[in-house]
Amino acid sequence: MNKSHPYLIVDALQYNNWSESVFKQMNYGGVSAVHATICFHEDFQEMVKNVICWNRFFDKYSNLIFQGFSSDDILKAQEEGRTAIFFGFQNCSPIEDDIGLVEICYRLGVRLMQLSYNNQSLLATGCYENDDLGITRMGRQVIKEMNRLGIVIDMSHSASRSTLEAIQISDRPIAITHANPSFWYDAKRNKSNDLLISLGKSGGMLGFSMYPYHLKNKSECSLEEFCGMIAKTADLIGVGSIGIGSDLCQNQPDNIVEWMRNGTWSLEKDFGEGSKEMSGFPLQPNWFKSNLDFINIKGGLSKIGFNEKEVELIMGLNWFKFFEKSFGKEEK
Amino acid sequence: MNKSHPYLIVDALQYNNWSESVFKQMNYGGVSAVHATICFHEDFQEMVKNVICWNRFFDKYSNLIFQGFSSDDILKAQEEGRTAIFFGFQNCSPIEDDIGLVEICYRLGVRLMQLSYNNQSLLATGCYENDDLGITRMGRQVIKEMNRLGIVIDMSHSASRSTLEAIQISDRPIAITHANPSFWYDAKRNKSNDLLISLGKSGGMLGFSMYPYHLKNKSECSLEEFCGMIAKTADLIGVGSIGIGSDLCQNQPDNIVEWMRNGTWSLEKDFGEGSKEMSGFPLQPNWFKSNLDFINIKGGLSKIGFNEKEVELIMGLNWFKFFEKSFGKEEK
Repeated sequence: MNKSHPYLIVDALQYNNWSESVFKQMNYGGVSAVHATICFHEDFQEMVKNVICWNRFFDKYSNLIFQGFSSDDILKAQEEGRTAIFFGFQNCSPIEDDIGLVEICYRLGVRLMQLSYNNQSLLATGCYENDDLGITRMGRQVIKEMNRLGIVIDMSHSASRSTLEAIQISDRPIAITHANPSFWYDAKRNKSNDLLISLGKSGGMLGFSMYPYHLKNKSECSLEEFCGMIAKTADLIGVGSIGIGSDLCQNQPDNIVEWMRNGTWSLEKDFGEGSKEMSGFPLQPNWFKSNLDFINIKGGLSKIGFNEKEVELIMGLNWFKFFEKSFGKEEK
Repeated sequence: MNKSHPYLIVDALQYNNWSESVFKQMNYGGVSAVHATICFHEDFQEMVKNVICWNRFFDKYSNLIFQGFSSDDILKAQEEGRTAIFFGFQNCSPIEDDIGLVEICYRLGVRLMQLSYNNQSLLATGCYENDDLGITRMGRQVIKEMNRLGIVIDMSHSASRSTLEAIQISDRPIAITHANPSFWYDAKRNKSNDLLISLGKSGGMLGFSMYPYHLKNKSECSLEEFCGMIAKTADLIGVGSIGIGSDLCQNQPDNIVEWMRNGTWSLEKDFGEGSKEMSGFPLQPNWFKSNLDFINIKGGLSKIGFNEKEVELIMGLNWFKFFEKSFGKEEK
């Protein structure tokens, strides 16, 4: 039996309640690479414990998954019909206030890091703050270090000025792994045209999110609406700068989204994109509930008018090319 | 022998290389209370280790010093001819990203905390950043918690907008424990008239620094110039809002000031108020080299024209009154 995934699928953001069944769905769904979040609020040592958990998974489910370190691992996963898991942080909390920890995280396999998550961090402003001071002094140093090592700067949850400055300051293209354009749905987490154009011009990548609070009509958003938005974004920034970053949080209990929003920074409860009445995870749209459903997006993209080559780029090849030039030291 | 200190002297900031000889100078100099920095960059556990060191000092030198928790301890120290040491942080790093640690720090005796130290923190912007976003979301929560517990908000190393917002947001008066007015010497760490007026009107306190980089003519600054500046500041914000915050860093080796500036946030060396050629601690002015020299300031204040009552306020009584209403839960 030829186990290879015939079609390259890369998802630039998932944070599932990981289990054998989720890994099997990745496999059956033909997903060759997933950027998996291993930190929201964890400090260094807490993050290391998450790596230990992942090492158990890699050991136990080696027929389904393995840890990815380089873009070659994506091709290897495709060939072997497995899924390469790339570690990433949604916050810079694991590097604490120590720039030396950036390289340590790289050695552990971390390949993407957000400079802030909703709130202000030591490096950059998050999109929920009232104002935005841009990249901090430490942020400038850490960007340089991430550039040197080859860790992708991810600004998905950062505020606008901080993101624009990250694009300018970084010597290597950056990513917004999971968000959508504001022109389509004006959520706090979605991004302005100016920002997306600047991202595209700099060689950066946008991953389209299917987290309902980033979607027009939320859980009711149709596949056609979603793919229509992708087509408009392709017109805006080019079909070479876009991919999928589903933000899939499969099987997570509601206390997890409460923790994502509140961490330990507040004594009052923050409901983020939700509300007191709707404080939990929203329902996924019926056309994207698990890793089995990438086929729906592929179909939707064809139907909206993308040719086969373009669909291939959006479904995985763009992220592959981006990771190829982003992970690890730059070849001069 | 009556050991009591006849005259109340309170210093709102020292960070010496602590030793028996320094404690003896405090005693002989008649200093009843010192706000001692126990953290610049330390995380919670590192800060606790500093508390353990202090506990050894309190045990070994109990004839000279004891830990202060309330303003009554200042009077007790004066009466007994000892010095009450009040713990404070120059940065919020020990509370990490956990608001629950604020109360834990209070229990350990921490009575003052800066919301930021030169750089951006999770709570506020530092005075060395290019821009200032004011108090962050977490910062607003932490100010409320500090207000509830009775920990003084200290904005000595914070940027201007953050400081003004802290004054507005805080239900209790705040402090700038160690800085001087910009009108006298325009250092990054010194404060504008607007800010000082707002501080004074809100019931806050300014402690005058004798760290040479905050002084006009630096190490060469004369006592007369220093006391003249105090007189002008009294005219500006009132004699009831000012005191001493010497910023004395006695006997510290130069690697300490390098660590204060650089912590672990940068791979490049930052020289702060110094320069590559002058990277170490600057020389103290010859009229203030140790805790024995408060008598010089007292004399200088009289000479410049303050009456005895005013000198008493500036030398310690203002800080005493401020700490009386600031430390611990507010009496309604």
